[in-house]
Amino acid sequence: MSSVLIVGSVALDTVETPMGLREEMLGGSATYFSMAASHFSPVRLVAVVGDDFPDELRRLFESRAVDIEGLQVSPGRTFRWSGAYHGMMNEAVTRETQLNVFEGFRPMLPDRYRDTPFVFLGNIDPVLQADVMTQIRAPELVALDTMNFWIDGARNRLEDVLARIDLLIINEGELQLLSGKSNVAAGIRDVMQMGPRSVIIKRGGYGSVLYHDSDWFFVPGYPEERVVDPTGAGDSFAGGFMGSLARDGEVTARTLRRAMIYGSVVASFNITDFGPWKLADLSAGDIEQRFNDFRRLVSI
Amino acid sequence: MSSVLIVGSVALDTVETPMGLREEMLGGSATYFSMAASHFSPVRLVAVVGDDFPDELRRLFESRAVDIEGLQVSPGRTFRWSGAYHGMMNEAVTRETQLNVFEGFRPMLPDRYRDTPFVFLGNIDPVLQADVMTQIRAPELVALDTMNFWIDGARNRLEDVLARIDLLIINEGELQLLSGKSNVAAGIRDVMQMGPRSVIIKRGGYGSVLYHDSDWFFVPGYPEERVVDPTGAGDSFAGGFMGSLARDGEVTARTLRRAMIYGSVVASFNITDFGPWKLADLSAGDIEQRFNDFRRLVSI
Repeated sequence: MSSVLIVGSVALDTVETPMGLREEMLGGSATYFSMAASHFSPVRLVAVVGDDFPDELRRLFESRAVDIEGLQVSPGRTFRWSGAYHGMMNEAVTRETQLNVFEGFRPMLPDRYRDTPFVFLGNIDPVLQADVMTQIRAPELVALDTMNFWIDGARNRLEDVLARIDLLIINEGELQLLSGKSNVAAGIRDVMQMGPRSVIIKRGGYGSVLYHDSDWFFVPGYPEERVVDPTGAGDSFAGGFMGSLARDGEVTARTLRRAMIYGSVVASFNITDFGPWKLADLSAGDIEQRFNDFRRLVSI
Repeated sequence: MSSVLIVGSVALDTVETPMGLREEMLGGSATYFSMAASHFSPVRLVAVVGDDFPDELRRLFESRAVDIEGLQVSPGRTFRWSGAYHGMMNEAVTRETQLNVFEGFRPMLPDRYRDTPFVFLGNIDPVLQADVMTQIRAPELVALDTMNFWIDGARNRLEDVLARIDLLIINEGELQLLSGKSNVAAGIRDVMQMGPRSVIIKRGGYGSVLYHDSDWFFVPGYPEERVVDPTGAGDSFAGGFMGSLARDGEVTARTLRRAMIYGSVVASFNITDFGPWKLADLSAGDIEQRFNDFRRLVSI
């Protein structure tokens, strides 16, 4: 079994949805990713928190055996994000972003992280994503997430790093902005020419799509009636996906498809409660049963 | 092999998309439905046209052996619709609707149509849909389509007929309006309580969902790069679906799932050209190959 490296954010999130309000709960892309991936393979985390970061939140990572030697502590306050979801809850409306110590984040990989075979570059400045790539050695697969802020504001830097990764994982709105195409097939074709040999498009409640080696693979969104908080759905999808790939230890059409389902499985659980605790509490049985449910959703 | 009855509209459509403009071409729900269904089973059509309806358009139905004894000709002009599609082309913007002879349409089933086992009530006034139900005898399955105009303006009449049908086929926006729920699982649960024992939700480029006997089935949208004209996609889906069910001759979890794929297959071809001619020209080989493509899109 291989390991997974995640470089991203650990944050304190304040989230309001039609189902309620939670203040300063544990969040961030690296948090959701690592909780999800930890069910499949060992996880190494690189992120930064402030000296106000509560010890009891750190214990959640330890409970899932996530390696947090790479979790830097900087003087100052932890990154804080506040947002709300309305209606179909497909997109967050950001109320406030306080970067705090995240503003000065420089990812530093502990030496024993540098040979991690499966690497996920979470949504941070493409310059930092490129810097991580100089610190890793001979990875099996490097996947990258990004967002409109970087596509709009740092396109050249983003294209530099896109040319060097294997897999791009973005949502449909980001694909449209990056490619200028509203048609998903046309957009993916454009994005492949920027470098990645595989692309995953996350479509919120509509599921996700993988394009790899001229082959399409679709996973539907799970028909969950009780959506409580979509925060972290994309990151937990990516975590389950990368964790499953690392567990299988190789990248083939078959392992990629399995990984798409496992990513969808953990994301489908994540949205049924606030924060990352639901992810932490999943059993292997929960995951396998939902995996089979996903198969049944499309079997003829 | 059973037959399919479609009651709906035959129209002259003027359509503009980013791919071009076509004026007064053959259109209408019964047209797209019958072209699609005719590849799977015999089709009987009930609709109305004016005395201006060109003979050469009538020949398209004959070329597919669609039974048009039920196509009434009334003095006056044929129903005309004009609309445009922009961007992702998921929804038409209506420019003009001239009901013309369609305004006085009273569906009259020729006597030999009355035992048709598979019946599709296209999107017309729910009073007329209910009237058709009094003319049919012991159908195997009755499916119904409707639209926001009737959900908003004739809810009581619509609920009367919903209580008497087997299968509701609507799009996601219509489900939201009908149920008041933005969550698709919650919306379907509400709609089932109005009567139908099965529901299909059409989701444009995201494919479609079937809910039947507490079981979900998802079909993705085909990743077509060259979408020319989405007009009739929903009606050709319904036609392929009902035609496949009629060909199988019985309603089971298995035949419903096959029918969902065949509906998606014909709809995926329909959108690659203006008008219903692409549907008319499909070969059995085209259809079987695309059916297998659809299986591959989701196979693990």
